[in-house]
Amino acid sequence: MRENQKQWKKRLHEIIYEADTPAGKLFDVVLLIVILASILLVMLESVKSIDNKYHNFLNISEWVITILFTIEYIARIITVNKPIKYVTSFYGIIDLLSTIPKYISLFFGGIHALAALRALRLLRVFRILKLARYLGASNNLVRAIKASRAKISVFLFAVLIVAIILGTIMYLVEGEENGFTNIPRSVYWCIVTLTTVGFGDIAPQTPLGQFLASLVMILGYGIIAVPTGIVSAEYTSQTNTNKPQTPHLNSQSCANCLADKHQDGAKFCHKCGHPLH
Amino acid sequence: MRENQKQWKKRLHEIIYEADTPAGKLFDVVLLIVILASILLVMLESVKSIDNKYHNFLNISEWVITILFTIEYIARIITVNKPIKYVTSFYGIIDLLSTIPKYISLFFGGIHALAALRALRLLRVFRILKLARYLGASNNLVRAIKASRAKISVFLFAVLIVAIILGTIMYLVEGEENGFTNIPRSVYWCIVTLTTVGFGDIAPQTPLGQFLASLVMILGYGIIAVPTGIVSAEYTSQTNTNKPQTPHLNSQSCANCLADKHQDGAKFCHKCGHPLH
Amino acid sequence: MRENQKQWKKRLHEIIYEADTPAGKLFDVVLLIVILASILLVMLESVKSIDNKYHNFLNISEWVITILFTIEYIARIITVNKPIKYVTSFYGIIDLLSTIPKYISLFFGGIHALAALRALRLLRVFRILKLARYLGASNNLVRAIKASRAKISVFLFAVLIVAIILGTIMYLVEGEENGFTNIPRSVYWCIVTLTTVGFGDIAPQTPLGQFLASLVMILGYGIIAVPTGIVSAEYTSQTNTNKPQTPHLNSQSCANCLADKHQDGAKFCHKCGHPLH
Amino acid sequence: MRENQKQWKKRLHEIIYEADTPAGKLFDVVLLIVILASILLVMLESVKSIDNKYHNFLNISEWVITILFTIEYIARIITVNKPIKYVTSFYGIIDLLSTIPKYISLFFGGIHALAALRALRLLRVFRILKLARYLGASNNLVRAIKASRAKISVFLFAVLIVAIILGTIMYLVEGEENGFTNIPRSVYWCIVTLTTVGFGDIAPQTPLGQFLASLVMILGYGIIAVPTGIVSAEYTSQTNTNKPQTPHLNSQSCANCLADKHQDGAKFCHKCGHPLH
Repeated sequence: MRENQKQWKKRLHEIIYEADTPAGKLFDVVLLIVILASILLVMLESVKSIDNKYHNFLNISEWVITILFTIEYIARIITVNKPIKYVTSFYGIIDLLSTIPKYISLFFGGIHALAALRALRLLRVFRILKLARYLGASNNLVRAIKASRAKISVFLFAVLIVAIILGTIMYLVEGEENGFTNIPRSVYWCIVTLTTVGFGDIAPQTPLGQFLASLVMILGYGIIAVPTGIVSAEYTSQTNTNKPQTPHLNSQSCANCLADKHQDGAKFCHKCGHPLH
Repeated sequence: MRENQKQWKKRLHEIIYEADTPAGKLFDVVLLIVILASILLVMLESVKSIDNKYHNFLNISEWVITILFTIEYIARIITVNKPIKYVTSFYGIIDLLSTIPKYISLFFGGIHALAALRALRLLRVFRILKLARYLGASNNLVRAIKASRAKISVFLFAVLIVAIILGTIMYLVEGEENGFTNIPRSVYWCIVTLTTVGFGDIAPQTPLGQFLASLVMILGYGIIAVPTGIVSAEYTSQTNTNKPQTPHLNSQSCANCLADKHQDGAKFCHKCGHPLH
Repeated sequence: MRENQKQWKKRLHEIIYEADTPAGKLFDVVLLIVILASILLVMLESVKSIDNKYHNFLNISEWVITILFTIEYIARIITVNKPIKYVTSFYGIIDLLSTIPKYISLFFGGIHALAALRALRLLRVFRILKLARYLGASNNLVRAIKASRAKISVFLFAVLIVAIILGTIMYLVEGEENGFTNIPRSVYWCIVTLTTVGFGDIAPQTPLGQFLASLVMILGYGIIAVPTGIVSAEYTSQTNTNKPQTPHLNSQSCANCLADKHQDGAKFCHKCGHPLH
Repeated sequence: MRENQKQWKKRLHEIIYEADTPAGKLFDVVLLIVILASILLVMLESVKSIDNKYHNFLNISEWVITILFTIEYIARIITVNKPIKYVTSFYGIIDLLSTIPKYISLFFGGIHALAALRALRLLRVFRILKLARYLGASNNLVRAIKASRAKISVFLFAVLIVAIILGTIMYLVEGEENGFTNIPRSVYWCIVTLTTVGFGDIAPQTPLGQFLASLVMILGYGIIAVPTGIVSAEYTSQTNTNKPQTPHLNSQSCANCLADKHQDGAKFCHKCGHPLH
């Protein structure tokens, strides 16, 4: 009997945590659809006219999704050998936060901020899309971005310093009567301009201000080249160097410690030695 | 007599479907001009002041173009061996849709939406511009874009997730009084900002909102580098690898099955074996 | 005596057309300053408040510059062996157009459009800046841009087709009440959006329109990568291939046929065989 | 006694000018925090509502920071062998300007422009972040930017000429009634558009103006590729060429002549021969 239960637990673990079996794939696809549907619900609820018309439908749908998530959350805890580790892991917390907003609203009414909690559900998509990794599409890309990160950070930091100094100068030149009411707002304008976004809610009106703004824009135009150049060069070198592909990894995940990235045909977890099934 | 007709059909096929003979080239150039003229007509018609003044002229011109397209459509059906295949092909449908709007308006009056049908005529330009391929200009480019497609899709998907989560947060921070009336609109603003378009019809007004917007913009500034880097690197590697040029292909198209990309001097269709002339 | 005059003519030719001698360099620098000053005049004149205050000063300055340009134009004609060729050359026409606006205004009064003629003077800067070529700064760059031109044209043409089709759809979706008053204006909006400029004077108001606009923006975001990738890759390959530098060219220009790009130490014009001095 | 004082001076020099010892690192981190805090103060002071509420707190904080900077400035002068050289160096002047604003305000009241002086303090961050160089993150990047500088300058200059000519034409086409009140403003609009910033405070209203604007935008879209391509290519070639890393440099700085970039294990200054400790 206990053996039987263990067998059943193993199968459930395979379905929930892996994507190698048809049932596992189906589970992932259904979960993906439920998550996207729940995000759509959050969006539609925020539209007054829709919420007024279909309030009941939206409310019931949210309850259905909440219950589905609750079942999934409990199943995940049951089938893992070390539940505490799952509950305190990044995705464990995301899963919990995705599930509770509707329960909270029972006690405190529909708090506005719960929408943000519910939007976090989107992060769960990334777990399912670990599948995407097996498409081999973004391996070099991820590596190139990682290699560029430090340089782009240094670069963006320099941009920030430029924005603060130029923002202060623009504040002095344009002044409050032209919308540059204080330095933070002026720095905000400077970032809007340097990044070539250009909302236009704040715009220089004095000739000197417009001249300085032109310099800022040409500067921004010139430096937008830098991060692009970095990624481009890194990616080129990644593509050239990493021709020998990484060994094919399957989507199994250890029932004991949740580690993934096991090689094809691996029999034991490479982290804790727990047998894989 | 029948032989004679077949000969005539063959010549017409050459003129309409190919660009190797002077008559074929002339046909393509005339067709290109007619298509562009018809697009110009659609545009001018939508301008109230012009339509009021020159309504009759525009109406007659549209009829002339419609009749020209009708003749061309019939000629294409006659000269092809398998008319059904042409009619149901992508360009066959485009050709039909390009021809019928004026006929439809006879029965239903000038429906507004017909303008969209007529704008589709522009897609026909691509068929004529298969000529462009022979300029050798965009071969590597097309290959680089194809090779980048998967990676750019993954990337744009990530951008979309970021936009939804940030959009929800901005909706909570700024609220309805500052133009972020609901989450879809807020996500729309987020996409406008991340892509550095920045219309400015919606813009954050609270200090916290402007701070978050600055982060979004700097993030957008940093990640605009990624797709550029991908295409750039792919294109570089395409240019390096594909030095041995593809054999020169002529503009013949099989009268039987419409297949093209026949090699120079090919006598038979590489797809159905039908003799090429 | 005639020999003497010829000698004098030769020296003047050297000063005006070349930049190898100190006098030639001085001439170029003075000319550059006069041109920039004249552009500044055109700009300041267009500012109402400045024109009202300093009208006389601006008027006299313009006359001084016009006379200087007249002298230069005559000197150029005199010192060249084939004046007709100079007068009908690109820079000959630019020089003439740069000189005459003030004379025209004598007969017809201050026509507004003369400002454009005067702004053309800026094009003369390029002739002087052929100097820049000798800095070796932009050789590979120019070559890369030339090599990319065809591909970028094909690409921009495709962008234009996308803009027309999407513009027509946006016109139908948003309609006149939201600022998309006709298709050309709608296409204009589409180009503004695809290029990530985003003025915001026209912006979609309906949810469907905003959804389509989001697609346009993400599309624009994705395809902005393409021309960048092209130039980047071309430039990389240019830099790799063209390591063996082009022979150093001096700034001499043939007195007979105006040809330049003579090699260092060349004694005769490589185009017409006329002796260089 | 004198020996003792010299010893003490040496240690202080090490702490202030170098980052190799724990004390030196601590000093840099504290200084960084004080600078950032002082910038935050400048920003908050400019916000009316905050200044009204916390005026006293901001005033006292500014005094504390001014006194800290004064002590640091004096310490820097004392510990350097050639104080005159430090005082007249770039960072010496920045340090002085960072210190004096509050003292000036004692005599002249809170002059508005002092905010700009105080914002200059941010430049001091760069000195501390010479640390960043040792992270090896931006070595190739800096070299690539330096190598690209000349080409990007030539390019930006060409952009400027285009902006002036197109700006003049737009001024003539659109005229004052559509916001293009004079040529400088029109050129400003042109730069805003070419750089794809697009504020939208000025936007073409006439069909011809919108058509020209479309050309400007597509042009801008095409040429934004150029500087990116330059940096990207330069950076790629830098990365390929400079594989043999530069020798590891430590953060020591000569007590005599302030020269830095000494090799690891260097015993004497490579510039003046003064012993390093």
